[in-house]
Amino acid sequence: MSKLLIVGTVAFDAIETPFGKTDKILGGAATYIGLAASQFGIDSAIVSVVGEDFPDTDLQLLKDNNINIEGIEVVEGGKTFFWKGKYHNDLNSRDTLVTELNVLADFNPVVPENYKDADVVMLGNLHPSVQLSVIEQMTKKPKLVVLDTMNFWMDNTWDELMKVIEKVDVITINDEEARQLSGEYSLVKAAHKIHEMGPKYVVIKKGEHGALLFNGENIFFAPALPLEEVFDPTGAGDTFAGGFSGYLAKTEDISFANMKNAIIYGSNLASFCVEKFGTERMAGLAKDDVQQRLMQFRELTQFEIELP
Amino acid sequence: MSKLLIVGTVAFDAIETPFGKTDKILGGAATYIGLAASQFGIDSAIVSVVGEDFPDTDLQLLKDNNINIEGIEVVEGGKTFFWKGKYHNDLNSRDTLVTELNVLADFNPVVPENYKDADVVMLGNLHPSVQLSVIEQMTKKPKLVVLDTMNFWMDNTWDELMKVIEKVDVITINDEEARQLSGEYSLVKAAHKIHEMGPKYVVIKKGEHGALLFNGENIFFAPALPLEEVFDPTGAGDTFAGGFSGYLAKTEDISFANMKNAIIYGSNLASFCVEKFGTERMAGLAKDDVQQRLMQFRELTQFEIELP
Repeated sequence: MSKLLIVGTVAFDAIETPFGKTDKILGGAATYIGLAASQFGIDSAIVSVVGEDFPDTDLQLLKDNNINIEGIEVVEGGKTFFWKGKYHNDLNSRDTLVTELNVLADFNPVVPENYKDADVVMLGNLHPSVQLSVIEQMTKKPKLVVLDTMNFWMDNTWDELMKVIEKVDVITINDEEARQLSGEYSLVKAAHKIHEMGPKYVVIKKGEHGALLFNGENIFFAPALPLEEVFDPTGAGDTFAGGFSGYLAKTEDISFANMKNAIIYGSNLASFCVEKFGTERMAGLAKDDVQQRLMQFRELTQFEIELP
Repeated sequence: MSKLLIVGTVAFDAIETPFGKTDKILGGAATYIGLAASQFGIDSAIVSVVGEDFPDTDLQLLKDNNINIEGIEVVEGGKTFFWKGKYHNDLNSRDTLVTELNVLADFNPVVPENYKDADVVMLGNLHPSVQLSVIEQMTKKPKLVVLDTMNFWMDNTWDELMKVIEKVDVITINDEEARQLSGEYSLVKAAHKIHEMGPKYVVIKKGEHGALLFNGENIFFAPALPLEEVFDPTGAGDTFAGGFSGYLAKTEDISFANMKNAIIYGSNLASFCVEKFGTERMAGLAKDDVQQRLMQFRELTQFEIELP
């Protein structure tokens, strides 16, 4: 069975959207990535850190979704990473109200022995030195290393970020981050520049406007599914990354043609994530629902043109 | 041969983008629609009005692109409609610097006898009473009536707009206008409300983020082609409408499946329009270039998923 190694935050989120608000609930990049990837029946594991305050029920939820959690360190007396944010009315932007790093501040990732030969490594948004450390612990070169990052690391840890970017096969970032990373406004030009930094594949996430996959001169685009209502965008980007990397781990085919499918699965799963608060929709999402939505993506995008 | 009747402005534009500026050049919704539709070798005609200052060379350009111009009234002593605008750096927004209605202020459209039985009527962005007058002059019910409009008419001529909207089969508007027209933020909900106003088909243009086609519960999405450089967005929406309506006139098939193709052709042609100032790229655009770009749209959007 293919192995997917995930590194990223396992955390508490408190979320406010125009539709309601939550107290501290389960969140974190690795959580969303893991739940999305669990759709593919692969052997996945999370490397992360939580505090003593992290509930067993949440760890159990991950295990119930077939995610190996031996790489999640529980720090005695420590507190779990906490993020609190409020979305604006259009749900396209948000304010961060609270960020408490807590145990994440001193996180030294330890890859479990059994996952040092993982086929695919998904580096969720984290300090680039943590991401690099995970790559360096692999005893067998992975078939594919995927990295997600954000503007915060571009602002504060540019040199470390460059070091890890040059070692990965795929980078997933949003459009504004692609512009910041490359200094180019045109996303086509931005992708070219980012290719030169290392990644052969560049995925640019545009939220409700879909996602672009670049590989040299090849470009593929997957729309986001148009929804009546987006309830909570939290974790959509991570869910996308989890669908993408999980599908590639499952199929073990990293051709451009198959990456198109991975992008579609990423968009597919992200469309569920935003339907409810936090991880509610993703935990226990039925395979049938995902397959049905795949048909919707086909209807939405596929055409057979007759030349006029 | 299928007939396409186009009503809309034939005008002068003066454009400033981050890449340069023009003096008065040929512009206007009907001009862009006509040039795009001319790709399909159909019998198309423009109903519009210009002043005595309108150069014969520009009328000749339309004729050279196989557009019948007997419905373009030339007002003696009159001045042609003039628009001057300046795009912001991201090219997604613009300021209107000058709008001189001139001969457009008293425009009474007269549909040439030979086009009163046109198969498809494309009502370009204009006063809704002018659009309605064209529909009322048709002696044979057209197979399809397509209407383009904008926020200005929603702000100033709501009642007249509602009267014409209820008579058309397809409406094409941008995302902000769809939200204003419907009072709904979600584009899915907006399309449902606009369906209730009359049009069975709702096309929502999202500029660089592509276009959505709604028909009840059916949704189709066409991306804009990712470009290295967008030079001048002027006329892209009209070119899209011209590609859409021209393709449907040519194929005489108004099924949802064929409308998908029409949307793709609209996006295809719009991707050329923005490559140069004004109508420069569209006048004389080679069929081969369009067919080649169709292949790019296929590569960009088509996938063959294997269930994992």
